Amino acid sequence: MTGASPRDPIRDFSRAEAIALDATDPLARWRDEFVVPDPTLVYLDGNSLGRMPRRTVARLQDVVEREWATDLIRSWSHWVDKPQRVGDLLAPLIGARPGEVVVHDSTTVNLYQLLHGAAALRPDRPVLAVDEHDFPSDRYVVDGVAGATGRTVRHGFDRLDDVAVIVRSMVDYRTAAVVDIAAETARAHAAGALVVWDLSHAVGVLAVDLHAAGAQLAVGCTYKFLNGGPGSPAFTFVASELQGIVGQPIWGWFSQRDQFAMGPTYEPRTDIAGMLIGTPSILALTGAECGISLSADAGIEAIAAKARSITAYAIDLCDHHGLDVCTPREPERRGGHVSVLHPRAKELTAALIERGVIPDFREPDVVRLGMSPLTTRYIDVFDGVGTLAALVESL
Amino acid sequence: MTGASPRDPIRDFSRAEAIALDATDPLARWRDEFVVPDPTLVYLDGNSLGRMPRRTVARLQDVVEREWATDLIRSWSHWVDKPQRVGDLLAPLIGARPGEVVVHDSTTVNLYQLLHGAAALRPDRPVLAVDEHDFPSDRYVVDGVAGATGRTVRHGFDRLDDVAVIVRSMVDYRTAAVVDIAAETARAHAAGALVVWDLSHAVGVLAVDLHAAGAQLAVGCTYKFLNGGPGSPAFTFVASELQGIVGQPIWGWFSQRDQFAMGPTYEPRTDIAGMLIGTPSILALTGAECGISLSADAGIEAIAAKARSITAYAIDLCDHHGLDVCTPREPERRGGHVSVLHPRAKELTAALIERGVIPDFREPDVVRLGMSPLTTRYIDVFDGVGTLAALVESL
Repeated sequence: MTGASPRDPIRDFSRAEAIALDATDPLARWRDEFVVPDPTLVYLDGNSLGRMPRRTVARLQDVVEREWATDLIRSWSHWVDKPQRVGDLLAPLIGARPGEVVVHDSTTVNLYQLLHGAAALRPDRPVLAVDEHDFPSDRYVVDGVAGATGRTVRHGFDRLDDVAVIVRSMVDYRTAAVVDIAAETARAHAAGALVVWDLSHAVGVLAVDLHAAGAQLAVGCTYKFLNGGPGSPAFTFVASELQGIVGQPIWGWFSQRDQFAMGPTYEPRTDIAGMLIGTPSILALTGAECGISLSADAGIEAIAAKARSITAYAIDLCDHHGLDVCTPREPERRGGHVSVLHPRAKELTAALIERGVIPDFREPDVVRLGMSPLTTRYIDVFDGVGTLAALVESL
Repeated sequence: MTGASPRDPIRDFSRAEAIALDATDPLARWRDEFVVPDPTLVYLDGNSLGRMPRRTVARLQDVVEREWATDLIRSWSHWVDKPQRVGDLLAPLIGARPGEVVVHDSTTVNLYQLLHGAAALRPDRPVLAVDEHDFPSDRYVVDGVAGATGRTVRHGFDRLDDVAVIVRSMVDYRTAAVVDIAAETARAHAAGALVVWDLSHAVGVLAVDLHAAGAQLAVGCTYKFLNGGPGSPAFTFVASELQGIVGQPIWGWFSQRDQFAMGPTYEPRTDIAGMLIGTPSILALTGAECGISLSADAGIEAIAAKARSITAYAIDLCDHHGLDVCTPREPERRGGHVSVLHPRAKELTAALIERGVIPDFREPDVVRLGMSPLTTRYIDVFDGVGTLAALVESL
């Protein structure tokens, strides 16, 4: 994608090379859209918490001072469908159509409700399937719903003929390995199982195309690559053909057909708003909206290209320094982070933070280096991996 | 509480009287703690959405620019127990002890999880009880949990011997009638039933004392009288004697004992954090924190006294104008709003809003006038009720 390709055989892994890569990075200018108080900080954890967009400050102020303080309750006339509007903003980033995504609650809550709803569509199937290494909240939710619905949990996806629902992350939160969601959705559907995809580590960094993959159900978070802010609300995707068919267990007034009639019985909406629950936080939704809009403006194809390029650069640098990378080397098979294995990973992570390099540690032996396409520079990767290599050397 | 008591027999219901009442209102200065862009607006809907505290603007800016933009992921070291810290701030307002309240998610989600958890403690009891006129989200949640757990729903609380759990609002969202939670909790417990109290219209306006009442389980919202912002997170109260005993159905990583070990199986915490679910929104929690702190600073006894006084004034004014009040006249039996019945209530509400008076309309015939003790002035009530009376007259 650039003149000075990270795969160029004559590379010297110099600082100058990293600076040259930044100079020709077509997304470089997007970093200016973020507040970066300390430009010397090497932040490689945008996949845990993305940086703060400048537009978030201005927009939050407008929401607080005009929409809340001035307009008061009258603002609910437009706040009321904000989960849908922010969902429509997010939809193109994951290959969804307008009216197929809502932004609300948390990934855990959204996964819980979608799994319950999906499992109810396969009443005779006794198994829920999840990877034993998937993100804890996903595994725990699966365990809980299995217990509540009289099912058992199977770790792994080899046998699917008795599986009601698969819960599966598209990108592994430790290794960044990507699942082929088209192939795995097809295989699940052929076996009669439904799949709820967790896109938390995929959205905003990969050009996910749920419709091309035949995926029908998904959740994910907005505070990682989408830069929605700490704990910003998650999303729920239900393909139009399943809307009004997939129900949900938490019967709140935001999914009620004629919400303000406050009628005697629960009659859920049959559109995507049927997945809403209670009153959404407008401050939290505003953060999500601003972050999502930035990714939408930058374009998901350009973002995904940068992710492939900068993770390739990180892997090459790690190889150059002799670090043990467990992230897949094929660009199409990895997400936006690169993980280095080391038995003293926890200690290395603490030492990196002391030196102004912020990665993430994952039990038991992973140093996770997150590359956030809109904010991470090649020079950050150069400095971060270099510091890590020096620390490993000094052990 | 003031020299010019609203119950003074020589009152003339003049503008001067209202101004005099404001002049001697010991809480009057707290209005200056809020952003009030249009002082001529008569806002009588603080019980749907409280006004914005000034401290919220400053605190949000600090959270966004310092905690998020500057400290980035490192802020999670203190964000991680913010739901508990904000809960501890709220606890004294409802007669709870430190470590008995968490602020998180929404009232609907919190009610759902607490009802599920409570019902599991009464496995042999086939009934969930709720008032048929309670707030819709509460009724719908009860219907959903009843269906999911093979129970039936009973409207009303006369017979309790087969009831697993009662869900009940302390303050009626339409009439403002207050339930005697001590008497009703005792009656329920004597019959072997548990009670989940919904304090949404009580918290921040009444001096609720859950422990004195023997109450063990409660939820409520923070965006009404607590001024936490639109859709700010709700709270869950579990009395210490039931912590670790009441479980919950949504098994997320924020209730996991050693959260960042990300262990293979769900082992819930046995303290109040066992009620948490997924990653909380820090922006939303910040709004809640600021609003709650204002009520804590002003003092709940003083707030409750103002509520009794200003609602008495509103009722007297309504009587003076011949309006049909359905709110209880005994000060101890009502919350912080006064409801006027009129067959053309919807039309009257719209006409009031056009004239700069903002009440709320509740189906089918209620104009609800909310008095928020920290922000509503006697003159607002004077002007609001006067405008309503003139409109009724002109019909």
